[in-house]
Amino acid sequence: MKIGVVAPGRPITPEIARTLQALAEGMAAARRPEIHVHPQCFLSSGHFAGDDAARAGAFLDAANDPGLDAVWFARGGYGSFRLVEAVLPRLGAAAKNKIYLGYSDAGALMGALYGAGIGRVAHAPMPVDLIRPGGEAAVRRTLDFLAGDATALEPATARRAPAAAFNLTILAHLAGTPYLPDLTGHLLLLEEVSEPMYRIDRALGQIVSVPAIRRAAGLMLGRCSDIPANDPDFGRDEDAVARDWCARSGIPYLGRADIGHDVGNKVVRFGDW
Amino acid sequence: MKIGVVAPGRPITPEIARTLQALAEGMAAARRPEIHVHPQCFLSSGHFAGDDAARAGAFLDAANDPGLDAVWFARGGYGSFRLVEAVLPRLGAAAKNKIYLGYSDAGALMGALYGAGIGRVAHAPMPVDLIRPGGEAAVRRTLDFLAGDATALEPATARRAPAAAFNLTILAHLAGTPYLPDLTGHLLLLEEVSEPMYRIDRALGQIVSVPAIRRAAGLMLGRCSDIPANDPDFGRDEDAVARDWCARSGIPYLGRADIGHDVGNKVVRFGDW
Repeated sequence: MKIGVVAPGRPITPEIARTLQALAEGMAAARRPEIHVHPQCFLSSGHFAGDDAARAGAFLDAANDPGLDAVWFARGGYGSFRLVEAVLPRLGAAAKNKIYLGYSDAGALMGALYGAGIGRVAHAPMPVDLIRPGGEAAVRRTLDFLAGDATALEPATARRAPAAAFNLTILAHLAGTPYLPDLTGHLLLLEEVSEPMYRIDRALGQIVSVPAIRRAAGLMLGRCSDIPANDPDFGRDEDAVARDWCARSGIPYLGRADIGHDVGNKVVRFGDW
Repeated sequence: MKIGVVAPGRPITPEIARTLQALAEGMAAARRPEIHVHPQCFLSSGHFAGDDAARAGAFLDAANDPGLDAVWFARGGYGSFRLVEAVLPRLGAAAKNKIYLGYSDAGALMGALYGAGIGRVAHAPMPVDLIRPGGEAAVRRTLDFLAGDATALEPATARRAPAAAFNLTILAHLAGTPYLPDLTGHLLLLEEVSEPMYRIDRALGQIVSVPAIRRAAGLMLGRCSDIPANDPDFGRDEDAVARDWCARSGIPYLGRADIGHDVGNKVVRFGDW
């Protein structure tokens, strides 16, 4: 398993890359991946890990490289949507025979890839998770998944397909664009971080009103963490909010999912593979 | 001119209503409106001016009242999208022969009304603007507009139609839903408040990627106020961000518009009326 790491949003540090290599080297030889961290991951241009051309170029380098089995997004933050329109038409045959891994902001690009039928996409912990206390377990989970370990999978989606997982706000910002995948019949898992409850409510109301999402087979809510106080108090928690919008829209609400911006975050394969 | 005031999002105080009535009473008799503030405007239920049923009921009371010429949204905040799906099918003939006025969160409902071809919709200052220093001038501008005064109009849109004006984030959260109006051929004015630059960039990137918006005749950027610091510095201001997304998408960027979350906010008629 050869993995290319690129950063379509914000950068990681060389220290994260070194820790990642050490983690891989500690794995049993039969399962040990070869990890190629693209130097673009360490660039900085304002908010981003290099300008759009640098980030798009690194992604295309990795995606179109027939020697790589997977492209792993290093970090979220914001930036992957800025690349979508430019990179999609430049993906060749090698890009279609590849696994794409990440979550959070990377979901914009992952959703577009899934919608375009390019490769196999999975919501999964990213190298940047190494900065969290206990983050090694999260990052190892992605490597275990690539090595064929089914315990890395989010349990509900291990049993049921097709599925997809997104950060709620990132999915809301794909809505209406040509890059929103059709989630008809899918089990849709959503997680959120650092958004006040009125924004969670607002984004969920939009999402369940999008025809290609209203036809989902069910919605599960991952963890919504670091929610700032709503002023005034919203009067409902995220579970009640999700229940309410599902009831209105007719999407079955199937309870909580084991994903989130944390070290417990599990792997969700998009679609059925 | 008989105006009904309702609050589809957050509440106003009775003091604001009294100030509003005094302002109207101070106008010349020939231009003086009759203002009916619905008691729902003073309700409170968590985040909202009463629960969804109370807010939808008040809106339907006013919109379906053949004795009223206009429905004026009292305040934004968040809440009008929650009413859209329930109220649209319940609007009768009187609702179609009516003016709807407001901005900010009310834009979700206003966009849905415009998309459904119900009434005449205008982005305009709201009663809650009375709490701003100098806010009487803003509120009087809406009343002057209703009395036929063309100086209340945003200058570019006074000369050019069809137009539409939205808070950027509110428009982003209409995208993908059946309630986003088709803005083909429109002059689109956008304003924003209290969003960091990466979110302005993110929402603009989405908006210009929506087919029914990419066909706009041009985009103008209103004021983007109270922008929290981006960490790290974004490296571009809102004007550069708008120019960039317009250049990428082929929508002509037509510069700055005289709208925003402030007392200088001007009136923009949706469409051509």
